Amino acid sequence: MQEVTAEIIAIGDELLYGQIQDTNSHWISQQLDQIGVRVVRKTTVGDNEKDILHAFSSAEKRANIILITGGLGPTKDDLTKPLMAKYFNCSIEPVQEAIDDVKLFFEKRGRELTPLNKLQGHLPTKCTYVKNAMGTAPGMWFEENGAVWMSMPGVPHEMKHLMEVFVLPKIKEIFPLPVIYHKVIKTVGIGESWLADMIIDWEDALPSHIKLAYLPSLGQVKLRLTAFGDDYDQLERDVLVEIEKVTPLIKTYIYGFDQETLEEAVGKILIHQNKTVSFAESCTGGYISHLITSVPGSSNYFNGAIIPYHNQFKSNLLGVNTLTLKDHGAVSEETVIEMAQMVRKKFKSDFGLASSGIAGPGGGSPEKPIGTVWIACASEKGVKTKKLQLAHDRTLNIQYSAIAVLSLLRKQLTNENF
Amino acid sequence: MQEVTAEIIAIGDELLYGQIQDTNSHWISQQLDQIGVRVVRKTTVGDNEKDILHAFSSAEKRANIILITGGLGPTKDDLTKPLMAKYFNCSIEPVQEAIDDVKLFFEKRGRELTPLNKLQGHLPTKCTYVKNAMGTAPGMWFEENGAVWMSMPGVPHEMKHLMEVFVLPKIKEIFPLPVIYHKVIKTVGIGESWLADMIIDWEDALPSHIKLAYLPSLGQVKLRLTAFGDDYDQLERDVLVEIEKVTPLIKTYIYGFDQETLEEAVGKILIHQNKTVSFAESCTGGYISHLITSVPGSSNYFNGAIIPYHNQFKSNLLGVNTLTLKDHGAVSEETVIEMAQMVRKKFKSDFGLASSGIAGPGGGSPEKPIGTVWIACASEKGVKTKKLQLAHDRTLNIQYSAIAVLSLLRKQLTNENF
Repeated sequence: MQEVTAEIIAIGDELLYGQIQDTNSHWISQQLDQIGVRVVRKTTVGDNEKDILHAFSSAEKRANIILITGGLGPTKDDLTKPLMAKYFNCSIEPVQEAIDDVKLFFEKRGRELTPLNKLQGHLPTKCTYVKNAMGTAPGMWFEENGAVWMSMPGVPHEMKHLMEVFVLPKIKEIFPLPVIYHKVIKTVGIGESWLADMIIDWEDALPSHIKLAYLPSLGQVKLRLTAFGDDYDQLERDVLVEIEKVTPLIKTYIYGFDQETLEEAVGKILIHQNKTVSFAESCTGGYISHLITSVPGSSNYFNGAIIPYHNQFKSNLLGVNTLTLKDHGAVSEETVIEMAQMVRKKFKSDFGLASSGIAGPGGGSPEKPIGTVWIACASEKGVKTKKLQLAHDRTLNIQYSAIAVLSLLRKQLTNENF
Repeated sequence: MQEVTAEIIAIGDELLYGQIQDTNSHWISQQLDQIGVRVVRKTTVGDNEKDILHAFSSAEKRANIILITGGLGPTKDDLTKPLMAKYFNCSIEPVQEAIDDVKLFFEKRGRELTPLNKLQGHLPTKCTYVKNAMGTAPGMWFEENGAVWMSMPGVPHEMKHLMEVFVLPKIKEIFPLPVIYHKVIKTVGIGESWLADMIIDWEDALPSHIKLAYLPSLGQVKLRLTAFGDDYDQLERDVLVEIEKVTPLIKTYIYGFDQETLEEAVGKILIHQNKTVSFAESCTGGYISHLITSVPGSSNYFNGAIIPYHNQFKSNLLGVNTLTLKDHGAVSEETVIEMAQMVRKKFKSDFGLASSGIAGPGGGSPEKPIGTVWIACASEKGVKTKKLQLAHDRTLNIQYSAIAVLSLLRKQLTNENF
C-alpha cells in the first residue's frame, strides 16, 4: 500500500514575527498521525504572494494532501483565497449558499451583514464550499494538480471544527490508509520515571507491532499504545490484552482512557455514586470549578463553590474560625480542613474540597515558601489533607493544585489510600 | 538598506508526527524580530536525507541567515551533522577543543565519556565550533553559499543559550540591520470587520513604512502596527502619531497595548481607582474568577466569588429572591441583576458582577436557546445588564461570556456607555 503523505502550510506574518505561536500545525499533525497519514513537512509563510505561491507549488510535489490554515479574514492583508484562485487559474464568484450561511451567522448574533463580510461568501470557482459553523470564513476544498487541498481559517476552534466534521472523514473516504489502532491509558498522581519502573517488564515484553510512548503533562502521564497491522479488530484485541496485563500493576493511578479528562472521570464516578461536590477555592481562584463545569451535565453533581479570596471572607462568608486563621494562617492544614468542612455544609454536598496556598510570585516566607499549597477533602468519613510543595510559576501552581484536588477527590470516591 | 532575511528549519520526525510541539521556532522568531531580521519562512522536516537537503538548498535561495534546530543527538537517526558536511562538501574530523568540552561536561556530572558521545566532538571541517555550555551537542556555525548557517540542538534551553551567547550577537555584528518597531493595540467588544469599517480611512492613509494587521481572537481584536526604517526613536514617534489619530475613532474598545491582557488592564484600573470586585458566576462556572486571579496581586482588588451552580443556592446562599427565580427563571435579566447586587453586598465590594446562561450542549428551549447568557454589573450607580446570544459550543460560550463580563466591568470603570 502506498504511503499517504500530507503537508501543512500555515500562513500569516504574525506567525513569522513570533506574535502568535502556531498551535494549529501541531494539532493537525496529531490528527493525521492518528489516521495513518504521514506528515512530510510543515511550512510557515507570511502574507506575501510570492512566498505563498511557492509554498503551494513545492507542497504539491511532495504530498497527496495539503492543508492550509490562515490568511482567510475579510481584510485586505488576507491573501489565501485570491492566491488559491490565481494558482488554480479560476475566478472568484459569489456562492449563494456561502453568502446565506454568513448572513445567518450574523443574524443569529443580531448583527447585520457588512459588505466586507458578504465578500466571505465569494469563492474560487474550482473549490467545493465547506460550511464553517463556528465562524464566517468558509472552508475551501480543492482537488487539483494531483493533490487534495483544504484551506481553513487560522482561528483554532474554527479549524478544528472543519477538520473534525469534514477534512478527516473526507481523507479517510478518499485514501486507502494503513490500519493503526491507538489506545491511551491516562494516569494521575505518579511521575513518569516511577511509572516506567513499575511497568518495565511488561514494556520489554510488548509484541513488536505494538509501540509504547510516555506523554507526560502537568501532574499526569499518558501511556499511548500504538498497534500497526492490517486488521483493525485484531489490533484492538491485541492492545486490549496488553492493557489487561498492565492494569493490575498501576491500577490506583489509572483514571481513564483516550480523550477522557480527569474532570470527566471524576464527574462519571459522582453521577454513578449519586454524590455531590463543592469547592472552597483560595489559591486556585476558581480554576477547579472551571474544570468541573467545563464538563456538560456537571450541574448534576456540582452544587457550587465559594472563592473567599480575601482572607476576611474565609471567616465572614465561609465560616472558618477566626482563631484558626489567626493561629495557623490562611495557608495551613487547620484552615484548609475547616474550609472543606464549611463548604461541604454550606452547599449540603457529600464532598467538600478546599485549596489554600501561595501561588506566587509574591507572598512567600521562609516557613511557607512560594508553592506551598494545602488541599483537603471533607466527607462523611472525615477529612483527608495533603500538602503540596510546588515551584515558582503562578500559572503552573494554580493548574497543578487543581489537578491535585481532583485527584484527591477521585481517591476518596474510589476508596483508595484512605 | 537591504532587508536581512532568515529562515528557521526544525528537524525531527517527532515534530511532524505531533509528539512534540516545536516551541523553538516561535521563540527564535521573536528574537529575530526584535533585532530587525525578517523571518521569511519556517520549515519543519523529518529525519530524512532528501527532505533535509532540500530544505537547505531552498532556504539558501531566500534567506541570509539559516537557523537549524534538532537532529544533533549522538544516535544514527540524527542526520543534521553528516548532512551539513555533505551539503558543504567537506569531511567530519575530530576537534580537540570540542572533545575536551564534551569530556568535561561528563566529568562534571560524574560520568565517563562513552565512544558515542566522544563522536559529538567530531565536526565538519568547514564549520566554526561553538561551545554548548548546557549540553553535549556542539553548535556549528558556517558561512557558505552566500548565507550564514547555525546548527543548534533541539533541546529548548540549549538552543536558547546558544542563541543568546553567540548567534544573536554574531548576527548583529555581521549584518547592517534595519530598525523595526512594533506596537499592538488591544480591543474588546467589537468584531474585526466593524473595527475595519470604523478605521478604513485611517488605514488607507497610513504612511508606506507602517503596516497594519488585524489579529482577532475570542471577543477581542488586536491591531498590530509595524514600522520599518533606520531610526528606532523616529519609528516609535511615527507609530505614536498614528495611534493618536486612530484612538478617537475606537477609543471605547481599546483596553491596552502590546502584551497586556484584559484581566490585567481591568486589574490596573481597579487598583488605580482603589475599587474592589466580586463575581457571582453561574454559567461561567469560575472562569471569570480564574482569569482575574491569574494576575499576580489580584488579591488587592478581588474579594472573592460565589458560584451558585445549582439553582437552590442562588437563593439559599447568594440570596436571590425565590420568587424572582420562579417567575423569570435562572437565566433572566431579573435574576442576574439580583445576583450581581447580592454578591456585591456579600463581599462588601464596589462592583458585583454576575453571569447566568445556558452554555450548552443541553438545557436550551425555544424561548431561551443554548447560548443565551445574561450578564450584569452592579455598583453604587445602579445595575447595568447585557444579553448575549452565543453559539453552541460550551467551552467557547464560557470563555466568551467571561470576556464579556470583564469588558462590561471595564466599561463601568471607565464610565463609558453608562
